Amino acid sequence: MSGNTKFWRSLIGRIKFSKSNYEAYHPPVFEAFKGAGPRAPTTQALSVLGVDMLVADNNNAHNTSRYKNTNLIVRRNKEFFIIISFDQPFNEQQDNVQLEFMIGSSPDENNGTHIIESIGQGRRNGRWKGRVVETQDNDVTVGITPDAGCIIGRFSTFVTVITNVGKQRTPKNPDTDFYVLFNPWDPADVVYMPGDSDRQEYVMNDVGIIYNGEFNNIAPRSWNYGQFEEGILDACLFILDAGKVPLLYRGNAIELVRQGSALMNSQDDDGVLVGNWSDDYSIGTAPTAWTGSPEILLKYAKDNGLPVCFAQCWVYAGVLNTFLRCLGMPSRVITNYSSAHDNSGNLKTDLVLDEDGTINRSLSRDSVWNYHSWNEVYMRRPDLPEKYSGWQVVDGTPQETSDGLYRCGPTSVIAIKEGELSYPFDARFVFAEVNSDVVYYKSDKLGNKNIISVDTTSVGKLILTKGVNSNNYEDITSTYKYPEGSDMDKRAMQMAENRGVPARDYTPPAKTGVEIELQTDTINIGENFKLTLNIKNQTGQNCTLDVTITGCVVYYTGVTSSIFKIESKTASVDPWKTTQVMFDVTASEYMPYRVEQSNLLFVAYGRIQETGTSLTTTRVVALRPPELTIKVTGTPQVGRDFMVIVSFRNPFNFVLKNIQLRLESPGLIMTKMKTYDQIAPGGTVQFTNTITPWSSGKKVLIACLDCPTVRQVTSQLEIIVQ
Amino acid sequence: MSGNTKFWRSLIGRIKFSKSNYEAYHPPVFEAFKGAGPRAPTTQALSVLGVDMLVADNNNAHNTSRYKNTNLIVRRNKEFFIIISFDQPFNEQQDNVQLEFMIGSSPDENNGTHIIESIGQGRRNGRWKGRVVETQDNDVTVGITPDAGCIIGRFSTFVTVITNVGKQRTPKNPDTDFYVLFNPWDPADVVYMPGDSDRQEYVMNDVGIIYNGEFNNIAPRSWNYGQFEEGILDACLFILDAGKVPLLYRGNAIELVRQGSALMNSQDDDGVLVGNWSDDYSIGTAPTAWTGSPEILLKYAKDNGLPVCFAQCWVYAGVLNTFLRCLGMPSRVITNYSSAHDNSGNLKTDLVLDEDGTINRSLSRDSVWNYHSWNEVYMRRPDLPEKYSGWQVVDGTPQETSDGLYRCGPTSVIAIKEGELSYPFDARFVFAEVNSDVVYYKSDKLGNKNIISVDTTSVGKLILTKGVNSNNYEDITSTYKYPEGSDMDKRAMQMAENRGVPARDYTPPAKTGVEIELQTDTINIGENFKLTLNIKNQTGQNCTLDVTITGCVVYYTGVTSSIFKIESKTASVDPWKTTQVMFDVTASEYMPYRVEQSNLLFVAYGRIQETGTSLTTTRVVALRPPELTIKVTGTPQVGRDFMVIVSFRNPFNFVLKNIQLRLESPGLIMTKMKTYDQIAPGGTVQFTNTITPWSSGKKVLIACLDCPTVRQVTSQLEIIVQ
Repeated sequence: MSGNTKFWRSLIGRIKFSKSNYEAYHPPVFEAFKGAGPRAPTTQALSVLGVDMLVADNNNAHNTSRYKNTNLIVRRNKEFFIIISFDQPFNEQQDNVQLEFMIGSSPDENNGTHIIESIGQGRRNGRWKGRVVETQDNDVTVGITPDAGCIIGRFSTFVTVITNVGKQRTPKNPDTDFYVLFNPWDPADVVYMPGDSDRQEYVMNDVGIIYNGEFNNIAPRSWNYGQFEEGILDACLFILDAGKVPLLYRGNAIELVRQGSALMNSQDDDGVLVGNWSDDYSIGTAPTAWTGSPEILLKYAKDNGLPVCFAQCWVYAGVLNTFLRCLGMPSRVITNYSSAHDNSGNLKTDLVLDEDGTINRSLSRDSVWNYHSWNEVYMRRPDLPEKYSGWQVVDGTPQETSDGLYRCGPTSVIAIKEGELSYPFDARFVFAEVNSDVVYYKSDKLGNKNIISVDTTSVGKLILTKGVNSNNYEDITSTYKYPEGSDMDKRAMQMAENRGVPARDYTPPAKTGVEIELQTDTINIGENFKLTLNIKNQTGQNCTLDVTITGCVVYYTGVTSSIFKIESKTASVDPWKTTQVMFDVTASEYMPYRVEQSNLLFVAYGRIQETGTSLTTTRVVALRPPELTIKVTGTPQVGRDFMVIVSFRNPFNFVLKNIQLRLESPGLIMTKMKTYDQIAPGGTVQFTNTITPWSSGKKVLIACLDCPTVRQVTSQLEIIVQ
Repeated sequence: MSGNTKFWRSLIGRIKFSKSNYEAYHPPVFEAFKGAGPRAPTTQALSVLGVDMLVADNNNAHNTSRYKNTNLIVRRNKEFFIIISFDQPFNEQQDNVQLEFMIGSSPDENNGTHIIESIGQGRRNGRWKGRVVETQDNDVTVGITPDAGCIIGRFSTFVTVITNVGKQRTPKNPDTDFYVLFNPWDPADVVYMPGDSDRQEYVMNDVGIIYNGEFNNIAPRSWNYGQFEEGILDACLFILDAGKVPLLYRGNAIELVRQGSALMNSQDDDGVLVGNWSDDYSIGTAPTAWTGSPEILLKYAKDNGLPVCFAQCWVYAGVLNTFLRCLGMPSRVITNYSSAHDNSGNLKTDLVLDEDGTINRSLSRDSVWNYHSWNEVYMRRPDLPEKYSGWQVVDGTPQETSDGLYRCGPTSVIAIKEGELSYPFDARFVFAEVNSDVVYYKSDKLGNKNIISVDTTSVGKLILTKGVNSNNYEDITSTYKYPEGSDMDKRAMQMAENRGVPARDYTPPAKTGVEIELQTDTINIGENFKLTLNIKNQTGQNCTLDVTITGCVVYYTGVTSSIFKIESKTASVDPWKTTQVMFDVTASEYMPYRVEQSNLLFVAYGRIQETGTSLTTTRVVALRPPELTIKVTGTPQVGRDFMVIVSFRNPFNFVLKNIQLRLESPGLIMTKMKTYDQIAPGGTVQFTNTITPWSSGKKVLIACLDCPTVRQVTSQLEIIVQ
């Protein structure tokens, strides 16, 4: 009963849709009609001599001429034109010709993977619109408009002449293949974006800035999105194929965004990038060493879907941004300063101190990242009430599983702001990222934890993205949150509670009347510096404070590593006065323990002798990396050579080893990489490149030096090519 | 740097939560305090001599005494009592004792997998409530109340005495393990169900009726849920372990329901049952042969998570119902007559006829199932606006993937009724199951499809479930839908459109003024019968109708198999008159082609000579299987034997082969199965069982005979045990 077994299989795996854009389907060049018999076609049947896709004109009209790709690239719901040349004049009343567009290995009209447009006598309504624009001698100009919801991908073109005995079809020809993309210029497309300057930034800009560092020390970093570079469009479609996304779903922006989020990371599905927060990147490229997306995407496609090593959040965000803009979806990378990673579904992040005032790492499971970068996509949400359209959060960094897989979003930013967390997808998680409280506990030997203090303001304090047509940041905090403590803020928190977010189930401790705060200046890596503890006594009593400072190195994810300093002092503060206590921090203390982005976390834990009450505060110090310089000699002109020199001097008293230096520029050069075994203390390296521009306009040179002991050494230079 | 690699791993797979209830954790029996040194405990420290879980009394109070299980079983947010016996009197002011409850392999207070309740001097607030109820000599009675949101599963109990040097803990003892279940009796639990008769039916009833057949021929079938049978509770928890559901999520009813839906089927995750709609069940048990859930669940657990062969929708629904009731969630099985399986996200199901009026199976991809059974769970939805609480749809049958996995629900029935389809989970799919239109097309040789007719009423026409404390069905269609065509119905359809359900994009054909309808009586398998076509001419013109009847066998899923009859006739109908045309269908025509549930589908396609317009209609004929009888001899009394005789006579003129006969009765006997190689035409078999009841009350005997050529031969008998 093997026939039945086959039938059963077809029912068990009920979705049998085609999942690859690149498995070519070769339809037969002749299909006889059922029962037509072995008759010859009538002699006057047309023959197709050629099909001209009018690539240059169409691409120009469709805003796709910047893609380095020789095929036609069009956008949904906008007409494009092709010319069919026959061996004899075409007669619209008599001849019956079909244009067939196919995608995937098993084209099917029901799935939108086989489009048929008739011209001439057999006219019919298909999903797309087709019309004869002009007939001149043997040439027919046809206008084709893909529907506004059609599948994104690479289609093949066939011209089929219908005769009385069957269909005569042109053979498969890769030159007449074309790509269909989303159309942010068209109001009928769900990704429609009204303003032209917005579209230029969020769809067409192939270079951007991603913000990292920490709240007090915002560090911009240029990133090459490179969505128009050669091979990138194919690589982005390949990601969907590798992720087995059914073609049927590829016209649905929500589905593509959600799948994109899942497919950026290698978890579950062998997606593009392997996450690594270990400080050991010896078997791949350090997350800090990349300068843009194209190198990563091309490697992934070249290695046939082998995940690329390694990424952290800004790399995921950078590559996801390329993927989205490349397919035509308006998108941007945003950074949330102090981003809570809440894995227990409530709105608090616990930080537990031991009896001696140091951080208890095993009990402090939730973490606050110094920053976290994710993406936003601009789109309508036809699945939700209308007001939730607009920017949607999507995150490619694997943090928590969402309904079974590592992915996050799309979720409406407006819904986050309003605390309306019932709608898909992952609104609760994003809401916690920007709204959690940080609760400081102290534990005793029985494991009893007592709250020392609650910080309600630091998480989600600042949310930034690159400005439109600007190299400055835009503060978009207010798109996620109402002002702290405002009526609208309270209303949003109440709404979140009504939508199942657990109420804050802890009682903040009574005010002590004494406030403490840690301060520093901006510090370069390798400098000694002073840490200042301000103690503000707002009571009428004398205050004698025993204070312990713990200094430890910390990843940007808030995960603490080695403790390098514990120091205690006692200060006396008069009523209504403020006193400063200074702590000296020397390079020799912290340098041996630094990890990657060189962030230091200081925790101050104080106990007031007079009252026995406790206080605590923390401060992250992001150390500034050394400088990297980019210089250009000569005037950059199209077709003429000029030189770019990237130089670096080792300012440290130790040898730097295993150095990677990268230089790239979207639209100018692909990634150039040079490695150095070592750079001696005080030693200098120069990386010189000769470049011949092939197009004029503003370009950005992006360079990055990376080695295991010093990371995040980046630089960028804007030049104008004449 | 292996330390770092370990650290990295812990970050890559960020959820490292315990996922098994049955990996025992053995905490140390002595834990010294940090820095306590090698001192001896003070001599007067308490010793624990014994712990009495008071199983009988507690289980009685918690409505769990029907579970055949020797351990304590309690429900959330209801106090239970245990007695701790010490070697000396317990002093509440001086002694410091902790009760520790642990679940899983790595108990953790943050995750709710390690509960600590202090009694005596060290009192603290934990998630659960603990109190000393009474102290009598050396015995202390403690009352423990698990919180209303706590994890469902099997906990271990430890009593820990705190001394000045450390913690002294009782060793692990399986006898003091206890289960915590959902509590439908408690308003604080999300599964709270107010009415006692409702709870008796939807939580406590271990036998039920599942409806199948088709709309015109409703066939009830008893099912043994058997949630209280020995081993079933452990099997249900094992399903969650096998499915790697983190313990952390096991207190969340929404999560458990959604995971339950995914874990009933073997797709993606090696869940309980393998779906098979092939008619070839030779390597397992036919879906039609089962009589209840316990046999399936025990086999799955015994085979350590190897999926059981085979299931169709009512088997999935029956087993999921056991799972839900067993864990304490009110649930029921419902049947939707004419259930659309819509896999293209719109609200129509296409049925395409070829030029000759026969069904084109390759173009008719969407299908309408004669019936489809799924489950409803009664619960609050804290994640949604309040009005969407109540019955929620959940479906264990793998039909389409939901966000990446085969699962469906929970989705609010009220939201389906209102067309409010934005909320999780899978509301669109369920809405289509009860609201789709069936569109009949006819295709020409070029593949052009023209609509012949649209049927807006048959899908979701009747939705049934077993009544509360009744063996009759309750019609719950109105809980899913407003009356067809009413203002509220239109409003719901409009709302669904606003939530992204594509509008009906086809124009029904103009009315012809002629209506056709197919009719039959109820037919037994093997009978000849007449099919009547009523032609009603509601015009002033004469109507000459050329009509073709196609008869094919069809699975209950609407998938058509062999065509066994094509017959054409011509009828003339006078203006404003009705005529009947009869078609004879003989057993010899259809018997060789029957598949499992013996449904025949007849399609009538007619063409009116005078106008050239087309008409079509269909009719499913569910053939009635032969009878199975159950008889009891003697009066069933507790502790006394009585006999049950199941008998069957082969009414056919052919030999039945490979027969399985099952008999079971919840609370009376586990499944008894007997196989027969063959039963000759006219031959009789009798299956006699001797039963000794161990409890009194109403019991249901359920029997089923199954063989490849005749399926769905079932019978049930209610008896009272004195």
